Amino acid sequence: MSEKNTAKKSNLDQVISLAKRRGFVFQAGEIYGGSRSAWDYGPLGAELKENIKAQWWQTFVRGREDVVGLDSSIILPRAVWEASGHVETFTDPLVECLQCHKRHRQDHLQEAYEEKKGVWPETMDDVVCPDCGTRGKFTEPQNFSGLMKTYLGAVDNEEGLHYMRPETAQGIFVNFNNVVTTARKKPPFGIGQIGKAFRNEITPGNFIFRTREFEQMEIEYFVPPAEAPQFFDQWVEDCWNWFVDLGVNPDNMRKFDVPDEERAHYSAATIDLEYRFGFQGGEWGELMGIANRGDYDLSQHTEHSGTGMNYFDQATGERYTPYVIEPSWGLTRALMAFLVDAYAEDEAPNTKGGVDTRTVLRLDPRLAPFKAAVLPLSKKEELAPHAKNLAADLRKRWNIDYDDAGAIGRRYRRHDEIGTPFCVTVDFDTLEDQAVTIRDRDSMAQERVSLDKVETYLAERIRA
Amino acid sequence: MSEKNTAKKSNLDQVISLAKRRGFVFQAGEIYGGSRSAWDYGPLGAELKENIKAQWWQTFVRGREDVVGLDSSIILPRAVWEASGHVETFTDPLVECLQCHKRHRQDHLQEAYEEKKGVWPETMDDVVCPDCGTRGKFTEPQNFSGLMKTYLGAVDNEEGLHYMRPETAQGIFVNFNNVVTTARKKPPFGIGQIGKAFRNEITPGNFIFRTREFEQMEIEYFVPPAEAPQFFDQWVEDCWNWFVDLGVNPDNMRKFDVPDEERAHYSAATIDLEYRFGFQGGEWGELMGIANRGDYDLSQHTEHSGTGMNYFDQATGERYTPYVIEPSWGLTRALMAFLVDAYAEDEAPNTKGGVDTRTVLRLDPRLAPFKAAVLPLSKKEELAPHAKNLAADLRKRWNIDYDDAGAIGRRYRRHDEIGTPFCVTVDFDTLEDQAVTIRDRDSMAQERVSLDKVETYLAERIRA
Repeated sequence: MSEKNTAKKSNLDQVISLAKRRGFVFQAGEIYGGSRSAWDYGPLGAELKENIKAQWWQTFVRGREDVVGLDSSIILPRAVWEASGHVETFTDPLVECLQCHKRHRQDHLQEAYEEKKGVWPETMDDVVCPDCGTRGKFTEPQNFSGLMKTYLGAVDNEEGLHYMRPETAQGIFVNFNNVVTTARKKPPFGIGQIGKAFRNEITPGNFIFRTREFEQMEIEYFVPPAEAPQFFDQWVEDCWNWFVDLGVNPDNMRKFDVPDEERAHYSAATIDLEYRFGFQGGEWGELMGIANRGDYDLSQHTEHSGTGMNYFDQATGERYTPYVIEPSWGLTRALMAFLVDAYAEDEAPNTKGGVDTRTVLRLDPRLAPFKAAVLPLSKKEELAPHAKNLAADLRKRWNIDYDDAGAIGRRYRRHDEIGTPFCVTVDFDTLEDQAVTIRDRDSMAQERVSLDKVETYLAERIRA
Repeated sequence: MSEKNTAKKSNLDQVISLAKRRGFVFQAGEIYGGSRSAWDYGPLGAELKENIKAQWWQTFVRGREDVVGLDSSIILPRAVWEASGHVETFTDPLVECLQCHKRHRQDHLQEAYEEKKGVWPETMDDVVCPDCGTRGKFTEPQNFSGLMKTYLGAVDNEEGLHYMRPETAQGIFVNFNNVVTTARKKPPFGIGQIGKAFRNEITPGNFIFRTREFEQMEIEYFVPPAEAPQFFDQWVEDCWNWFVDLGVNPDNMRKFDVPDEERAHYSAATIDLEYRFGFQGGEWGELMGIANRGDYDLSQHTEHSGTGMNYFDQATGERYTPYVIEPSWGLTRALMAFLVDAYAEDEAPNTKGGVDTRTVLRLDPRLAPFKAAVLPLSKKEELAPHAKNLAADLRKRWNIDYDDAGAIGRRYRRHDEIGTPFCVTVDFDTLEDQAVTIRDRDSMAQERVSLDKVETYLAERIRA
């Protein structure tokens, strides 16, 4: 699939356009002017998200003896975020252009400068406002909290002030004792969860890459302290392999060893997996991070709550606070990477004996929104009942489209560009031979398969 | 299963206790004093929730040709909630006891009075404060907004004011045109979604029944106006059947035709499905509602956004605003009903030739958190590899427990009370005959099954 690596930058725009046109992603509140804070996932996007979550949950939670699931709440008392350090340190440096009054994250302006000039700016006097072009006219940086607040109860006061989680992780840490007791787990073991998180980003942007409402898939993996480095390495590898197994071209991924000064306050080591999204002004973007959080979180919660969060090892008679290795995925970033990586343009034969350019999403069949489309060759009424019955049968197991509108070649193109791995055509021969033609999305090869073998044929190839 | 219907009231307390003890449900932020606003779902609760969601999505979205999925954002601009009527009318009447200063929903106090006395109170002078017992000393009712707000952007001002959705429905309505265009659907068709919603309840309570953060499963089903009544009836039936098919005893369910004065502002007809939870002071509680919302929502959004939200029927040449039938499930209420309904106590043989009382959750296998437990008869090292291999194999497909701690009878009890439908015991005969004993949770019958048939044996009975 050499076409994957060409023209990476323009793929992004085409993917964004395709995502909107075909119903993967819509702008939230679009009819009211829209928002860059959040996005809505349409019928195809919702299925793709579900499939990514299902693969993740099976690989890292259900499929592993040493990991259990959790689903904690989004709104947690302020005390949790005080203990975690978020109230104090979860801030970004905000500067405002004195000319146009647009606000920016200072570090983003500095990074853009470095990207362009090759060196970090000595002072903000060297930096130009990306909105109005004025040089060096910024306010002093202010610490701007990334926490989003809300009020519970009848009055908006301090008592009712709660924060929406900026990461799902803390919901796991505060339940450490509950899980150890009820699931009878001992380190090394992990707790995984999938859910929404909220950060009051100063400058959301790059489509679904940086949003104020987003979704994470996180595992907190608790280990004896001495074993933390080896588990850290293992998790980096497992995470990398998960993307590759689901079809991401490793040439479009890289590891970034986050240096001391850029790491979060709790982290002893962090490796980010980055994907070559092809953004303007910096084509790589963070896909996920794997952090060694040490015993920071459990120690902080022990101190702030007065509840000991540690583990007593009956074998050695020792009590210790486990270290935590945290692989943390951005679900919507993963979705974006799967889309960008799957996008390709190649050539397909047309009815005039020539070739046309076709758009094809080479999504792994496990991720594809529709597993198959059932297409009656014509709208003639003899074919419809057979095609409808087949679609209804397959729908008991998978998400299946039924499409009888337009020329067959056009229907193939329609399904190629949304990644449907198989098109199943019911034609007039079907009435005789009780068989259908199954077309493979990637090779465009067609195979005649008897009706009673269709489900098995698809099951072997879809593997989900 | 006659034991299901006895002692319903006490079941609830036992279910709550079991849910906490075994890791279905924990209090959110428990180590910081906890909250009644939200609950965390432990390893078993998270699996149960996932299974309910998967069944719902398969039954009502993927499994139906006429329904597509959506996943819209939690935070939507204020304009959406102004159009929907929530900013103005989504309020509860709040009264405060002048004696103890506790706040209550006036309608809840009035309902409790009616439950006890058989008549609605003529004035609040007749009503007693449930906290301090003082009669008739309340403030005048105030309209208290159930919307939870947050602020996006750098300053907490009107411009940044956004609301967290109190229902997932509006995220569907505002995307009506997007879905019609991209999924090429025409009425009758539906859009389904699962997700969190938030309501600033004055008095959360009854375990996970009334919380400020909760989860919904909703379908907005768009129909030609004349067909709304018949689709309404059909949806009431489909919803009822879904619960019964998943094992809820219909004797514990009833339909409540919500009278005019109690219906939401948008609804032309509402039927609630209620479940006999066994609360103190009113044993029935709302499980879900099916509403005929008419064209209220699409008309409101048309008016407020200036974007026409209607459908042009090419066959008749007519443009019309579809009516909406909305079946709306409380996911966590459904979870609670499945637990209460599945809870039973019966008798099981003990090792002394007598019988013991056992607790058993008769969850449908499709919903059970663990599909099977693999139990090596003893910890002797000959058995472990065979048992571990079998567990690892089955784990590729299902959530499987491996349990080698304690007497076999005790392990059976442990799995009976969390609803594991099958216990698979690897014993010393396994080394000879390559077979295992599979015990059925409900009948407690045991069957010898050859190792290479275990997966098929379970698959036929689990059906998931």
